[in-house]
Amino acid sequence: MKKVTVNTSTPYDILIERGLIDKSGELIRSVTGAKKACVITDSNVGAIYAERVNASLERAGFETALFAFPAGESEKRLDTVASMLSFMADFRMTRGDIVVALGGGVTGDMAGFAAAVYMRGVSFVQIPTSLLAQVDSSVGGKTGVDIPQGKNLVGAFHQPILVIIDPDTLETLSERFLRDGMGEVIKYGCIKDAALFRTLENENAFDIIEDIIETCVCIKRDVVDRDEKERGERMLLNFGHTLGHSLEKLYNFEGLTHGEAVAIGMVMLALAGEQAALTEKGTAERIKSLCERYGLPTSDPASSGELSELCKSDKKSGGDSVNLVLLKRIGESFIRKTPFSELESFIEPRDQ
Amino acid sequence: MKKVTVNTSTPYDILIERGLIDKSGELIRSVTGAKKACVITDSNVGAIYAERVNASLERAGFETALFAFPAGESEKRLDTVASMLSFMADFRMTRGDIVVALGGGVTGDMAGFAAAVYMRGVSFVQIPTSLLAQVDSSVGGKTGVDIPQGKNLVGAFHQPILVIIDPDTLETLSERFLRDGMGEVIKYGCIKDAALFRTLENENAFDIIEDIIETCVCIKRDVVDRDEKERGERMLLNFGHTLGHSLEKLYNFEGLTHGEAVAIGMVMLALAGEQAALTEKGTAERIKSLCERYGLPTSDPASSGELSELCKSDKKSGGDSVNLVLLKRIGESFIRKTPFSELESFIEPRDQ
Repeated sequence: MKKVTVNTSTPYDILIERGLIDKSGELIRSVTGAKKACVITDSNVGAIYAERVNASLERAGFETALFAFPAGESEKRLDTVASMLSFMADFRMTRGDIVVALGGGVTGDMAGFAAAVYMRGVSFVQIPTSLLAQVDSSVGGKTGVDIPQGKNLVGAFHQPILVIIDPDTLETLSERFLRDGMGEVIKYGCIKDAALFRTLENENAFDIIEDIIETCVCIKRDVVDRDEKERGERMLLNFGHTLGHSLEKLYNFEGLTHGEAVAIGMVMLALAGEQAALTEKGTAERIKSLCERYGLPTSDPASSGELSELCKSDKKSGGDSVNLVLLKRIGESFIRKTPFSELESFIEPRDQ
Repeated sequence: MKKVTVNTSTPYDILIERGLIDKSGELIRSVTGAKKACVITDSNVGAIYAERVNASLERAGFETALFAFPAGESEKRLDTVASMLSFMADFRMTRGDIVVALGGGVTGDMAGFAAAVYMRGVSFVQIPTSLLAQVDSSVGGKTGVDIPQGKNLVGAFHQPILVIIDPDTLETLSERFLRDGMGEVIKYGCIKDAALFRTLENENAFDIIEDIIETCVCIKRDVVDRDEKERGERMLLNFGHTLGHSLEKLYNFEGLTHGEAVAIGMVMLALAGEQAALTEKGTAERIKSLCERYGLPTSDPASSGELSELCKSDKKSGGDSVNLVLLKRIGESFIRKTPFSELESFIEPRDQ
């Protein structure tokens, strides 16, 4: 079993091993004395895994209750969280009890937020079942909910007490959602790890997925260790995300998956960086080829004007400018504060 | 101007002086570089003070927006917070902007919670206008919202960056809400300060209200300094509150004000303590007389059975027991973990 320890203000372990889901009860028992465990999942993941997790929790002595909401990004709303909170109160959870988030990013974000605010904070465990959640959202303690004005505009920083990653769960993911996660995997290579990037170019990531997950989790862990509250370095993890979020928003979070939108955003920003002579020539082309290799889109018909307008409502902006993440080259990234007034022309592709 | 500094993980000042409300803009400007200030208030307080606060903020260079919700404890709901959050997003607030909570406890609790979760946390300033909020809820960083299952079952710990107390605002409070705050003032005397208790017995608190507020704020500050996250000593502040919450709930938060419910709870627990020979004889009688002097009720027809049943859903409970705050004598308090199975008989009044 691989184990990655995250030393945030409340340290926790990320465990990675095939088949771990059936041991979740005993693993969770080793980090909490809770009596009750509220498992939060969506209808898709719940149908496949809830029973196994539940059985494992009960074997470990937890009293359990299952809250399953309809699968889909559109369910990531405050009223879904309100239903969770009422469910937890009806289950008579106290401050010593725990929430277990079983599912992808939407589940982890919402269940984590519910745990952060129920009685001003109860402990929670993440069992991420999508590649995206395994390499990204299960690490770092960010929780969030969408509101009509924007994605993740509401949330809290709340660290899990344990993260259990069972790569076997990827086998029940659709092709498209597996690719979705690859958008984030490629991002890690871009911002921090040229070797990872080359591995992805030369091998099939899915043949060595446990190693890939561990590498990604370690990169994120190292960044979060140094910057838990996202004041500086952690912003690098947003490479491709600022434009990506705008694209997701443009299509009402339905046209593109998160990873697809990030892939397009990465290529756009690498191009913009090259145009401004901030990024090594050829970088965008390598990212584009790698994204294509893993079935991810690399461009979108949306105009620079549309995207920059959407960016202005993005939470990463600091008033009249936005912190864009750019690459110096593959494996090396930096932040460039960009005034909104320059954004459109900065990302506008020019003939070269 | 009186100044009390609270040394929580993020230290902040509490300023107390008559007329301070018209200087709020410059005072807030001295602690933040924010561009935008979203003033959150209720319809009652807003009608009296919003314009003055707004004018002061604008003089200090803030761009302002006003969110006023209908006054009343029944508005303390998640959907009211959701409306605030959408309003803040429409105002295009970024992480560097601030929320100003102008009003009583309900406003401070909800606006503080909205600030805690908007973009995972923006700064906020408290301008408490009720005695209750001035001596209690403006200090300590607890924010909260009610859900159908219970009061303050949802919330966050989020410290303000500044608290501005203008005792002149008490002049527009109704008699009943002024008394309401006295419930908390008496509580401070009970748990920590026999001298304060005697002062309240011998003088008219409202003649020396600035000193009283400062004393109360300092007591709470000292407790919170030592125990920000409510793991130990801070629980003492809940004296009278466990039963008080149950009473409030019993009457749907309409029959009794918070301070009235706390007054009844304090007398009940002092009596229970005396019955168990844990509290000095005569303590309950002194508390009862003092509460009566300030127009607060000291008993309720609700049965011990009803109240202990309602206690079980209280968030202070740790599974199958509740942490009751008891007095050794006036000015000295302690925590007694009480199993739910004993609670009813513990609080049941016996003939003496």
